[in-house]
Amino acid sequence: MTTIAYLGPAGTYSEMAALRYLQLCHPDLELDPSRMCPYPTIPQTISAAEQGHVDIAIVPVENSIQGGVTMTLDSLWQSESLQIQKAIVLPIAHALISRATNLNQVQVIYSHPQALAQCQQWIEQNLPTAQLIATDSTADGVANVSRDQSIAAIASQRAAEIYQEPILQYPINDQPDNCTRFLVLGRTVSAIGTHSSLAFSLKRNQPGALVKPLLVFADRQINLSRIESRPTKRSLGEYIFFIDIEAPVGDPNFAEALAELRSVTENLKILGSYEVIES
Amino acid sequence: MTTIAYLGPAGTYSEMAALRYLQLCHPDLELDPSRMCPYPTIPQTISAAEQGHVDIAIVPVENSIQGGVTMTLDSLWQSESLQIQKAIVLPIAHALISRATNLNQVQVIYSHPQALAQCQQWIEQNLPTAQLIATDSTADGVANVSRDQSIAAIASQRAAEIYQEPILQYPINDQPDNCTRFLVLGRTVSAIGTHSSLAFSLKRNQPGALVKPLLVFADRQINLSRIESRPTKRSLGEYIFFIDIEAPVGDPNFAEALAELRSVTENLKILGSYEVIES
Repeated sequence: MTTIAYLGPAGTYSEMAALRYLQLCHPDLELDPSRMCPYPTIPQTISAAEQGHVDIAIVPVENSIQGGVTMTLDSLWQSESLQIQKAIVLPIAHALISRATNLNQVQVIYSHPQALAQCQQWIEQNLPTAQLIATDSTADGVANVSRDQSIAAIASQRAAEIYQEPILQYPINDQPDNCTRFLVLGRTVSAIGTHSSLAFSLKRNQPGALVKPLLVFADRQINLSRIESRPTKRSLGEYIFFIDIEAPVGDPNFAEALAELRSVTENLKILGSYEVIES
Repeated sequence: MTTIAYLGPAGTYSEMAALRYLQLCHPDLELDPSRMCPYPTIPQTISAAEQGHVDIAIVPVENSIQGGVTMTLDSLWQSESLQIQKAIVLPIAHALISRATNLNQVQVIYSHPQALAQCQQWIEQNLPTAQLIATDSTADGVANVSRDQSIAAIASQRAAEIYQEPILQYPINDQPDNCTRFLVLGRTVSAIGTHSSLAFSLKRNQPGALVKPLLVFADRQINLSRIESRPTKRSLGEYIFFIDIEAPVGDPNFAEALAELRSVTENLKILGSYEVIES
């Protein structure tokens, strides 16, 4: 029995990613609803897998327009035992869901801050005076739509179907080429995949410290496909670096780089070696 | 006559940074209110300086807890003519402003998403069921407090004074050591300061492309004090890199690095060379 925590409720893009994962990676498993465990926030979703309440957690980590999902990166750094098992890239298309019969009636829009940001230009042009209300997930906002014709939510077409609310306009995202990358996190030490992720902090008060870890990779011609910094939250100017590498952890060249990396970082975490599924 | 655009209205942390800048860098100028020009969003604040409606714009770029202010980074990349004139680091302490007589009465909290995120743990512990409403600035939320005792806003002590609303609790930020770095942007090519910032994109479909620019600095032992990536918004996996360097643009070693950097990047922008004011 595989159980999956995701940023809920049903109808979120995280649920779509979770269903896609089951379909592609476990085609033998039945799509039993009891496998699917929605959680209200990203830290709670990740913590459910960390504490063993579920087998895996699926959370967004990066969007092609809005960039890194900082809450996921911060929770990953806190996690003691989770490893990335897979990454899933999902196209994102937002719908304006409302019982209004035309746009002029809409006065309030509920959605997750990332979705609101992804439709920012559309909102400025079409509903410049609407009040924007942040929700914990895109699907959470849809429950408000039934209250009044002046209320709208931004979420997936699937969310509109699940909550049986009408779509007023679709798609409304500013960039048609909008994708989100999700991570499948579990306690299993991940199989050797084509991509690896790691994170490290640097020793305090060493001004030249960032050059050294970057040189470890550059010297070996290992390509960093992504580097993202997050604050340590200790003080301004101290960072945790998240790095994605197009090499499996088991690669001898990469294994050597990791050993050297330990000596030039304060705290180094191997977040996993995994395959990326484009869907 | 120096005029300053800032993320308004009066009472925001950006206004505090603007007043601090005037006090420290132009002690001879009178604190005439007509110098201070509030704008409702970060892109509009930056655009006011870009188009010459004001002399300079002051915007937040990085917080010690929440990390980079993505809207500022994205607008800086779009700007054709603005250069960083100064950076100002300001301590941030948030107040819960409300006419409620105790916390149990508070049902709705208005604030800027960054301020809500900086008080996230406090809210979860003290007001777990409160509805969070995103506003364009911290001070914007304070106007709602007068409507009802069930309404609160998260903003500065100064905002409470300006709008003459009571502070129910202070400070409520999760980390006591909370600082924000602001940028002073103007059309003058900046004087040679101790810090420099630049941004670049990479040529498309060149998997090893990030190693080269990093090597340019590493080879010369030039320290990157910060590296932050933002999506190009073209497609997932393509980034713009923002780099802060502890060297003036005029330094011969750095000038040589810049020349080499041009050949290994797609588009390179020198964002300025400037002093950092810790206040």
